[in-house]
Amino acid sequence: MTDTNPPAVGFIGLGVMGRPMAANLLRAGFPLVVHSRSPGPVEQLVALGAQAAASPAEVAARTEIVLTALPASADVELVVAGPQGVLDGLQPGAVVVDTSTILPATARDLAGRAAAKGGAFLDAPVSGGEMGAAEGTLSIMVGGQAAALERARPALAALGSRIVHVGDSGAGQLCKACNQLVIGGTMAALGEAFALARKAGVDPARVREALLGGFAASRVLELHAERVIESNYSASAPLRLYQKDMQIIMDTAREHAVPALVAAWVQQLVGLAVADRGSDFDYAGVITAVLRLAGVDGQAA
Amino acid sequence: MTDTNPPAVGFIGLGVMGRPMAANLLRAGFPLVVHSRSPGPVEQLVALGAQAAASPAEVAARTEIVLTALPASADVELVVAGPQGVLDGLQPGAVVVDTSTILPATARDLAGRAAAKGGAFLDAPVSGGEMGAAEGTLSIMVGGQAAALERARPALAALGSRIVHVGDSGAGQLCKACNQLVIGGTMAALGEAFALARKAGVDPARVREALLGGFAASRVLELHAERVIESNYSASAPLRLYQKDMQIIMDTAREHAVPALVAAWVQQLVGLAVADRGSDFDYAGVITAVLRLAGVDGQAA
Repeated sequence: MTDTNPPAVGFIGLGVMGRPMAANLLRAGFPLVVHSRSPGPVEQLVALGAQAAASPAEVAARTEIVLTALPASADVELVVAGPQGVLDGLQPGAVVVDTSTILPATARDLAGRAAAKGGAFLDAPVSGGEMGAAEGTLSIMVGGQAAALERARPALAALGSRIVHVGDSGAGQLCKACNQLVIGGTMAALGEAFALARKAGVDPARVREALLGGFAASRVLELHAERVIESNYSASAPLRLYQKDMQIIMDTAREHAVPALVAAWVQQLVGLAVADRGSDFDYAGVITAVLRLAGVDGQAA
Repeated sequence: MTDTNPPAVGFIGLGVMGRPMAANLLRAGFPLVVHSRSPGPVEQLVALGAQAAASPAEVAARTEIVLTALPASADVELVVAGPQGVLDGLQPGAVVVDTSTILPATARDLAGRAAAKGGAFLDAPVSGGEMGAAEGTLSIMVGGQAAALERARPALAALGSRIVHVGDSGAGQLCKACNQLVIGGTMAALGEAFALARKAGVDPARVREALLGGFAASRVLELHAERVIESNYSASAPLRLYQKDMQIIMDTAREHAVPALVAAWVQQLVGLAVADRGSDFDYAGVITAVLRLAGVDGQAA
């Protein structure tokens, strides 16, 4: 942040991710204008010092940086480019930063429309989950113009500990697709490993402990595998969002003619997990789906 | 280690892994007796203070703890139970610690035969590669009797920073199979991610950098993916050994009736990589095999 007053920042979408991110912006000293479909989270942020706006357009009219954190492509299109949307109120030189996980093609389209209004649009999906959002330690994968990123960087620095300019518009979303694919492939392999352990009479918790010290170590093994071993899904991210991510991955793989057998299998495991546990279950259900296929009870321990 | 003099330790198999492990035992103050088929590494260890023995039986006759680090199941069977093998010279109460990656069933068999001679056999495969062996930071996955592990623990502590007693005989090897499976699944998913990045015009090095900050972070992403991005395979572990590991995984999965689609696919990618680059190529060839399938040139960058 510079010596001058921090720019006014807008935040639209105060869900599981958006709420703690918005709170971190307030904590970092940014004047914050918020909007969300649900009144509860708006009231919470107002109690912390934010101002409420009646529409995305009003948020944009009152701020220089507008962040969005929404479930899917259609939501972002509506909030940014729909009636009373962000583009309707966009100030010249303002930057829209979409932290949602959406199709790279949608991000490119919205970037073009923001540029036509004299502003900029960055795709800036994040990894690190609710925990990373709360702690301000997200990894932020940015696609779009470098100059726009520099304008938004002080605000993003309040949200994440790693900000990577991946490339042009859409590159951030492409990177997030890669991120979700790698998480899924790791979970699918872990499911097979835990199934092998269970059926051979070996404790998966000991396997996890041993693997954490070698080349198989990963954040997925630390966090997602622990949730499965302890059957404790309180830090859950829902399968319904991950199912959307897998569709983005498969659509993008097809678009670029990339054979993606692991991704395709992860997508099927997500389907199995949703059928078995419902779409609100934790996306570590990819691991338990493999256990179920192996004929163990879907519990690692 | 206790206040008393450290026990004499034997080391058989002075290859890429065994050589630095044996050197670490000398450094930690253990009297060391070594044997290897190649004279060069024996001379190196003797120069560092080890004594040479003419056969595995002679190593066993002169030591209380006998470590082996060999390529495959057949080598371990020959060295431990073959003519002039470890069991021929095994002292009462001595512990054989096999750090090789072999079939769990072979480990269980040798444990029975060592017990019949009044000694013990631990399966204790490692993860962390040549680097972990050199730095003494291996993860050691132990199967067998707890009492035998306690006798061997001071020596193992010179080799690894994490020693996990996974379970009974064979459990260490089962755990190592899980380890190699998870590494392979992560590499296969990373190959798809890098192929997607390459074909979408996004720099895989930036993708790697962004992913390292979030839930997709892993040792494989740090180390193996870096080798692929930089086309620098100097820290290589050869496909020929990983191919053997994948066969152990598939044999064990079949034995326990575990569906292992990711493992099966990794095995095919290993075959592709061997066909393309030869069996001495780095096992990160699993990643480049996917790039090749996607029609990019097998280089990530």
